[in-house]
Amino acid sequence: MPRTIYYTATSLDGFIATDDHDLGWLLSRKSGEDGPLDYAAFIADVGAICMGANTYEWIHRHSHPADGTQPEPWPYEQPCWVFTHHDLRPWPGADVRPTSGPVEAVHAEMTAAAGGRDLWVVGGGDLAGQFLDAGLLDEVVVNIAPVTLGSGKPLLPRHAELRLIETVRSGEFVAARFEVVR
Amino acid sequence: MPRTIYYTATSLDGFIATDDHDLGWLLSRKSGEDGPLDYAAFIADVGAICMGANTYEWIHRHSHPADGTQPEPWPYEQPCWVFTHHDLRPWPGADVRPTSGPVEAVHAEMTAAAGGRDLWVVGGGDLAGQFLDAGLLDEVVVNIAPVTLGSGKPLLPRHAELRLIETVRSGEFVAARFEVVR
Repeated sequence: MPRTIYYTATSLDGFIATDDHDLGWLLSRKSGEDGPLDYAAFIADVGAICMGANTYEWIHRHSHPADGTQPEPWPYEQPCWVFTHHDLRPWPGADVRPTSGPVEAVHAEMTAAAGGRDLWVVGGGDLAGQFLDAGLLDEVVVNIAPVTLGSGKPLLPRHAELRLIETVRSGEFVAARFEVVR
Repeated sequence: MPRTIYYTATSLDGFIATDDHDLGWLLSRKSGEDGPLDYAAFIADVGAICMGANTYEWIHRHSHPADGTQPEPWPYEQPCWVFTHHDLRPWPGADVRPTSGPVEAVHAEMTAAAGGRDLWVVGGGDLAGQFLDAGLLDEVVVNIAPVTLGSGKPLLPRHAELRLIETVRSGEFVAARFEVVR
């Protein structure tokens, strides 16, 4: 059965970004390679992706230089649903599918597109929480950076009961995979 | 050199207690035994303890049955400084030393009493943050419970740069020890 996975990095105190959406605390750290929670192994099993509009806009902003030079390529091969109530800034060549939800309908579309592979909820925390609320979230996989931020965007603004499946050191990070307890 | 250590349990999303100070999410979980971050090994190297008044009052409340029957014994052998601006409820036989701070002076008293052993900052998060602000915190050791709470009392309401020293699975928990980067 394909799983729906919230795979993300977080600070030790449970923030996935600072209040002003800076990720310097994260990108300055080195993760390990080839562990069981490694990104390359994870993404190879993913058949469909979704994210919130803020996450999409962050990737867009950081991939399109302000000086108008060549943007970075869209980083995903899989189709990507973006939850939004506004028009998204376009990204030529990217398989981006704007949607206004609800998560149940998008989950069904993603499952049909994924061809038996897993679904990745990229973030933010509240979108992952909507999948959780709908009983559609199977796993939470976190790469915990060695930093506390004190405030920021919350990892998962919900009460969620989890079960630890595995944990490993991954470079400067603690990586851990949890199953959602229903 | 003795180290000053903030050793605590936390939810995956960085809360050490719920908003109403409930610890059911924590006490219902089983930690491992005999790992390098095990409590018994940790406390054996601790020579002095400190905590905030809320933490003291929580321990007091949960050790003194409402029906007036025999209370639990005070759980620590080491002298314990309690930061407070009020009178504490007494605990006969406990070596509890009320103080109004500042952390620098208390740290010096604790070091003198600890006889070369480590100092334990039990919590809460803001007290640990005061030691951090004063440059007096050496390590953060967390036992991460498999649960998110969504809100509650923050682990460490500060920006703190850390370095991962070791991490292990400990029963249902992820245990990790970090050095504070100064």
